Amino acid sequence: MARNFADSLLAAIGEKRVPACVGIDPVYARLPSEINEDPALNDETDSEAALDAIREFCLQTIRIIAPMVPAVKLNIAFFERYYDEGIATYYEVVEEAANRGLIVIGDVKRGDIGNTAEMYARSALGDPDFSDLDDRVAPDAVTVNGYLGSDGVQPFIDVARNEGKGLFVLVRTSNPSAAELQDARLEDGRTVCELMGQHVEQWATTDEMIGDAGYSCLGAVVSGSDREQIMKLRAIMPHCLFLVPGWGAQDVDPENVKACFKSDSRGPVPSASRTAMKF
Amino acid sequence: MARNFADSLLAAIGEKRVPACVGIDPVYARLPSEINEDPALNDETDSEAALDAIREFCLQTIRIIAPMVPAVKLNIAFFERYYDEGIATYYEVVEEAANRGLIVIGDVKRGDIGNTAEMYARSALGDPDFSDLDDRVAPDAVTVNGYLGSDGVQPFIDVARNEGKGLFVLVRTSNPSAAELQDARLEDGRTVCELMGQHVEQWATTDEMIGDAGYSCLGAVVSGSDREQIMKLRAIMPHCLFLVPGWGAQDVDPENVKACFKSDSRGPVPSASRTAMKF
Repeated sequence: MARNFADSLLAAIGEKRVPACVGIDPVYARLPSEINEDPALNDETDSEAALDAIREFCLQTIRIIAPMVPAVKLNIAFFERYYDEGIATYYEVVEEAANRGLIVIGDVKRGDIGNTAEMYARSALGDPDFSDLDDRVAPDAVTVNGYLGSDGVQPFIDVARNEGKGLFVLVRTSNPSAAELQDARLEDGRTVCELMGQHVEQWATTDEMIGDAGYSCLGAVVSGSDREQIMKLRAIMPHCLFLVPGWGAQDVDPENVKACFKSDSRGPVPSASRTAMKF
Repeated sequence: MARNFADSLLAAIGEKRVPACVGIDPVYARLPSEINEDPALNDETDSEAALDAIREFCLQTIRIIAPMVPAVKLNIAFFERYYDEGIATYYEVVEEAANRGLIVIGDVKRGDIGNTAEMYARSALGDPDFSDLDDRVAPDAVTVNGYLGSDGVQPFIDVARNEGKGLFVLVRTSNPSAAELQDARLEDGRTVCELMGQHVEQWATTDEMIGDAGYSCLGAVVSGSDREQIMKLRAIMPHCLFLVPGWGAQDVDPENVKACFKSDSRGPVPSASRTAMKF
């Protein structure tokens, strides 16, 4: 049976001695000048040239960070921008990261009803079941939107359990307008994101989901912006690793991330995409 | 200025005399035997052969339905299943549908924070802004997941307003577990999906969103399974067209769909993907 994803991620964190994830959200206009200095490339209207530069940036970044951090998060939106060729590039980057020993998180935020979610789970997370594509490398984990409830999440759970993969369900996102829905208060005093967190903990603790370290292969995306909220969500989801986005660019106080830790010194995986990460 | 999407959709409904949308969720194993009868294709492990059969099915379906219905909904998950080649096929099918005069709804259910949502909006909904891809045809509208709030929806609104396109935000989905989160009751007596509906109505009625017929280019995905709930959501979102999934396979009572109509005999766009639609 495949190794539990949480165990794999915690082992990688232990080996690199830092619980951090580097996010790659490549935007052509923001690439370093060494990569886009060719005037022929200085026009985003040329998708092929832009995508070549983005591929180069991603592959170089991965080679640089691989010895230093345990995990990389690739946001597929920045590749989908380039349609089918962008998706091909996304999988090239996933493969390079996997080959360099990184845990690869595909930030895809998919969410749909049962039979459709199964399609997403099989392509975005599962290893290919087509014999003519068996060299294709899929991410080790993906992000999932749980607004549709458990039957949209179950197909991802099935793949995770069977193939030693993981998923992180959006509980409290880090964007300014997240509060509009996620912080609404329910009649029993909980907030919407706390209710989502309770579902997540329940999904996370079903059969064969918990690894040797006591964490589930199903984790949560939790914003690092509000310390009190983090502590509540930590108590609601004791078996979940937290993927904590927005360190830096989204003004997350590193002190808040500490509240994601449990007494075993584990728990959070802070992710930074648009900033230098300082330890 | 581009024509308002709601006006375009209502005109197409008027022309075809039926407010209906055919959903295409192509699964290789369920294709008609005329298309997958070749033994060489009878193995889903051969992605290329499976995708060829799916492409053929989609193109033939579109040629058959184009004279009869105003709109088609393509669920991208069933194409993503085949990675980059699947995405290329998705856009081929979108183009064929658009060329045959159908309103094309891309059922992508994307949802992310601001700068990432912008990437999704520009590729999944916007017409390509790359000169080497300017023959690429994008859908007329897409579905969007609003769990992250307004700054994840705004980029889609911007594209819709500027390019005469539309979006349908998930308010109440039709799957069995939708109630877990969407029907949770807030302290003020509303449910979570009603709160989402109020945000949707607010987004739908901002500057330049309302067309000549009084409907916004921003609509809602609303399940047809509960008549009382539909009537509440209809009252909350008077300016929104409702995309109503699940007619047939998901046991929606056609009587419920009637509750989506307003006094102007407009309002719902029922969508059926896995059943024959009867009028």
